[in-house]
Amino acid sequence: MVRLPHRGWLLDLDGTIYVGEALVPGAVETIAALRGDGRRVVFLSNKPLQTRADYAAKLTRLGVPAAAEDVINSSLVLARHLATLDVGAPVFVIGEPPLVAELTAHGFEVRRDERVRWVVIAFDRTFDYAKLNTALQAVRRGARLIATNPDRTCPVEGGEIPDCAGMMAAVEAVTGETVSVIVGKPSPIILEVALARLGVDARDAVIVGDRIETDIVMGKRLGLATVLVLSGVTRADDPRVAEIAPDLVLPSIRDLIR
Amino acid sequence: MVRLPHRGWLLDLDGTIYVGEALVPGAVETIAALRGDGRRVVFLSNKPLQTRADYAAKLTRLGVPAAAEDVINSSLVLARHLATLDVGAPVFVIGEPPLVAELTAHGFEVRRDERVRWVVIAFDRTFDYAKLNTALQAVRRGARLIATNPDRTCPVEGGEIPDCAGMMAAVEAVTGETVSVIVGKPSPIILEVALARLGVDARDAVIVGDRIETDIVMGKRLGLATVLVLSGVTRADDPRVAEIAPDLVLPSIRDLIR
Repeated sequence: MVRLPHRGWLLDLDGTIYVGEALVPGAVETIAALRGDGRRVVFLSNKPLQTRADYAAKLTRLGVPAAAEDVINSSLVLARHLATLDVGAPVFVIGEPPLVAELTAHGFEVRRDERVRWVVIAFDRTFDYAKLNTALQAVRRGARLIATNPDRTCPVEGGEIPDCAGMMAAVEAVTGETVSVIVGKPSPIILEVALARLGVDARDAVIVGDRIETDIVMGKRLGLATVLVLSGVTRADDPRVAEIAPDLVLPSIRDLIR
Repeated sequence: MVRLPHRGWLLDLDGTIYVGEALVPGAVETIAALRGDGRRVVFLSNKPLQTRADYAAKLTRLGVPAAAEDVINSSLVLARHLATLDVGAPVFVIGEPPLVAELTAHGFEVRRDERVRWVVIAFDRTFDYAKLNTALQAVRRGARLIATNPDRTCPVEGGEIPDCAGMMAAVEAVTGETVSVIVGKPSPIILEVALARLGVDARDAVIVGDRIETDIVMGKRLGLATVLVLSGVTRADDPRVAEIAPDLVLPSIRDLIR
């Protein structure tokens, strides 16, 4: 029996459903039970490194059937949000090919020079001085800054690697400008896209995630029910857990079902 | 006749003696007059992109005879200062070959991996994600951060390019650590090295520079006489000029001689 009555379920991916390539035990059964009970499920990720189809394929391979439309990640949300601000604008991208593909698919003119209205900043393992310089020149010509996600580092097998915060900080430091919008968790922007996909109100939705400072903070702000799982980054004795007070704190996603 | 009586003269390079490849008119005659009058002259630069010998060769080529020992730049000062903190330490360098050469010459073990005690951060036109990641891994193993100079950008023909502040901000953002020492202007560290080279006290020294926020602020802090020249970055109507109040504000270095 599902512990909460809500119709809409937003499930974080890394640390909640899988850790790296390993499925969290019980995730397949829990998601099957939610769906079997008529609940709607969407998957949420701050990572702009793969396409939504890639994430869906990974979930399906691990035993959780998913379509690309069931996955909301920061690339998609950035492209959608920027389309509301400045449709079809020329953009320079500090990011990897899946993000570029998402922006192109949304009608943006992705350029390799500074003749742009926006500099899009993301987790980019190909970041270098030339990109930093192009961003500076673009801002000197009046371009604005928008970013996918605020994460300092990204957890990987045996440690962590630099995430989007590194690229943002470099651009902000040399331009003297601040990033005007960050669309990923804990921004309400990604949550609104996800709720629209679910077709439910915030009051009828639950967010399940392993990061107290993104998943749970964001859910609380918008009035969703919140479930912190301890299968990822946040530990039970983290002082923020008592302070932010998720509705449920569970060992893992398995425990959503009684 | 020299306008000020001090024996020691610290002259900034870019924006004060030359702008790019062009000598500031009157610089050759002014420096010759200072030397002819028995004043001691040292050249100061925050730039770690060339060796001291390179700067001396450029000055000599432009008509200002100079030896490598007359030039104090942030690479030299960093190597000397770090030698007082942790002589011979293994270091990872975000920087270009002249800085690496200076550190090697001072006995440091420059490594390309994270097995180091210090991450040295400088203006680096070859900065990339791999270096950022190595810096992160080094800090996770306990390495500390030290940097050459705090400049946001470096003026170039027709504009500016990202300087050391970009690399520092990226490393600080992903590691969550702050740079513990920045040796370049306006740090007293570079000024103390320059005064030692001149062999005079701060009270008997003048600093001449074009940047109110580095050259002049630093000089004021340590009690030197200060001369702002308007041949470089700072404009006469900059509100900081009235606030910080250099002893003299002159159109250019030429006007040091009456």
